[in-house]
Amino acid sequence: MTKERGNAVVGQSGGPTAVINQSLVGVVEGLRQGLAASGSVARILGMRHGVNGLVKGDLIDLSAVPQDTLERVADTPSAALGSSRDKPDPEYCGKILRACEEKNILWFFYIGGNDSSDTCRIVSEMAKQAGYPLRCLHVPKTVDNDLPGSDHTPGYPSAARFVATAFRADALDGRSLPGIKINVVMGRNAGFLTAAAALARERDDDGPHLIYVPELPFDPARFVQDVERVYARLGRCQVALSEGIVDAQGTSIGATLIRSGQTDSHGNAQLSGSGALGDALAELLKAELGTRASKAPRVRADTFGYLQRCWPDASPVDRSEARAAGRVAARLAAEGVEEASVALIRTSDAPYACDLRRIDLSEVAAKTRHLPEEFRQGTTDVSRAFLEYARPLVGDLPRAAWL
Amino acid sequence: MTKERGNAVVGQSGGPTAVINQSLVGVVEGLRQGLAASGSVARILGMRHGVNGLVKGDLIDLSAVPQDTLERVADTPSAALGSSRDKPDPEYCGKILRACEEKNILWFFYIGGNDSSDTCRIVSEMAKQAGYPLRCLHVPKTVDNDLPGSDHTPGYPSAARFVATAFRADALDGRSLPGIKINVVMGRNAGFLTAAAALARERDDDGPHLIYVPELPFDPARFVQDVERVYARLGRCQVALSEGIVDAQGTSIGATLIRSGQTDSHGNAQLSGSGALGDALAELLKAELGTRASKAPRVRADTFGYLQRCWPDASPVDRSEARAAGRVAARLAAEGVEEASVALIRTSDAPYACDLRRIDLSEVAAKTRHLPEEFRQGTTDVSRAFLEYARPLVGDLPRAAWL
Repeated sequence: MTKERGNAVVGQSGGPTAVINQSLVGVVEGLRQGLAASGSVARILGMRHGVNGLVKGDLIDLSAVPQDTLERVADTPSAALGSSRDKPDPEYCGKILRACEEKNILWFFYIGGNDSSDTCRIVSEMAKQAGYPLRCLHVPKTVDNDLPGSDHTPGYPSAARFVATAFRADALDGRSLPGIKINVVMGRNAGFLTAAAALARERDDDGPHLIYVPELPFDPARFVQDVERVYARLGRCQVALSEGIVDAQGTSIGATLIRSGQTDSHGNAQLSGSGALGDALAELLKAELGTRASKAPRVRADTFGYLQRCWPDASPVDRSEARAAGRVAARLAAEGVEEASVALIRTSDAPYACDLRRIDLSEVAAKTRHLPEEFRQGTTDVSRAFLEYARPLVGDLPRAAWL
Repeated sequence: MTKERGNAVVGQSGGPTAVINQSLVGVVEGLRQGLAASGSVARILGMRHGVNGLVKGDLIDLSAVPQDTLERVADTPSAALGSSRDKPDPEYCGKILRACEEKNILWFFYIGGNDSSDTCRIVSEMAKQAGYPLRCLHVPKTVDNDLPGSDHTPGYPSAARFVATAFRADALDGRSLPGIKINVVMGRNAGFLTAAAALARERDDDGPHLIYVPELPFDPARFVQDVERVYARLGRCQVALSEGIVDAQGTSIGATLIRSGQTDSHGNAQLSGSGALGDALAELLKAELGTRASKAPRVRADTFGYLQRCWPDASPVDRSEARAAGRVAARLAAEGVEEASVALIRTSDAPYACDLRRIDLSEVAAKTRHLPEEFRQGTTDVSRAFLEYARPLVGDLPRAAWL
């Protein structure tokens, strides 16, 4: 049943990251050294804008791209092939399968997050049912760090590096001109990226002073009290707030504030690309604290937005691991696995070391991992365990000096 | 009338920048090598939070701070002494003068923008009237680049570097997941910082595709047409928009959108620290284009916020010039000038060279420079002359690679 020789296709999906091109290059390199070198893979094809390009026949041939071009692409943030928000249903997956058959594609590599691993899983099952020998390999990627089965996910360390750097710089700005500052951080369901703000701290009274993650219900009245307490003590207060915060009923605070209620193609409310959440909470603080304090505090909100996932200063660990994840997927394909994702398993904290292994697609697909309880401290901080977890991922940050 | 020996005081004012500490260190170094070495300056004092600290007696002695600490402070963004938004009126300036007399301060250095130079001017005039031999030296600083008499202002090149880097990275994100993206840039009255977004372009169809500066009236209907035209051609559109855009009557578009209408202590409406302007224009585009296009385009807005002025990746030229500006102010003091600001005069384009010279405070104080007509092209772009002007200031940017 197994065809001797066929093509491989690779695509990128979902929100881009600073290192998703490392994984793309890792897959291409891994194939060149493995299945392409042995003659099993004839051509390495790239999907333009994910499975959307595959079903439309919008493919490019990556077989002969020179290594120095690959290296420069690997160091470029965002998806060099283009990405897609399409979430294939069974009908769509049927089209994917037919496109693979038509192009004699026997290996399907998809770099992405929760939804992309689910696409791999569905396509793999449909191929089996149809008796078509398609191997489906998922390469993990998400700034949200919310894939189960891994210590962390490629893309997260670089986004966390941006967030920690931004909080450190913004805290210096907040010492210069004190006030209350809310910074809204990406992360629809998981608080890992918001938690990374805590890496900004160098001194005891450094921000962020309050951290709000989606794993705990957000209560506006308690939020006002929290801020008032810090502001009374320090004369300033820096807040890290996830765009994904929800109330006690699990309703998104941000989604209800964004007037148009635009949803993406997965039916998720648009949270990023709007400052509405931060602005509304700043207004709340102005209204509540403006009347209580002797002098109305200066209140500002910034929403870090898309720069979190595309800033061209990737974490060294992330660059290396994202590349390795692509190569491991290609190696698993060479070993003959029918379907797999790649898990990152930390093997040592000091010095930091991480192993990349096969994991079943079903263990990753369409599941969400949350910031675990041992990484939280109280309702507004992260634990020492989280700091020790995140520090080696993010790498050294620019240090501040004081007079 | 001239006292033989007295103290010098230095302060930082207004919005911090990535290099305002370079200027602080430049003043301290310049004094140590000049007036302090010769014995004229006894102690070098720093004002905590600008003139606010001076009148309250909140000063620190910088005379003995070790050079390696100074070097690390110089490389730290934001105002190490703390900054202030106080805009002294004559009564306040009277307090400043009395504080100088009480502390035997004969040299007053103030690092800041338009308002700070005006404070220097008023204090200098009051000192003359009172017969007190106070020398007032202004060291220029503003990310807005809106001080007259100079080619550019320290602080601008680093903020422009952040903006250009952000637009380049965001444009890659926008190629990955195409749509319409509005990025709101700082700059209340002058479009220099927004114009710097154009440095992001590497290829002909790279963003920003539309640039809106405060120097030209903003017409929402024409804005919708502009975006529609670009989007129809490229399937994506990246917009650089100044927070300071005004309508044909000169009314701030952003200020009218920010519900609370909070004003700073200068009576200016708060523009930064809110996403309201970008969000409102995104809503406008969704409403207008959603009905016209066959498929509603993806529209997002990010407001870059305070990261523009504190990001720890200063431009090399800016670092060096901000330091030099502080040293030149100290040298002018040693030469006996009674009052002065420092102007940056470009002497060569290729290779870039810039000379720092004395300029009368009255030529700088409380005046605003705008993006000149020769730096604009049409109503939505900058000219080649602007690109040639800005490129050496910003330095090399991370380069992108494509497949």
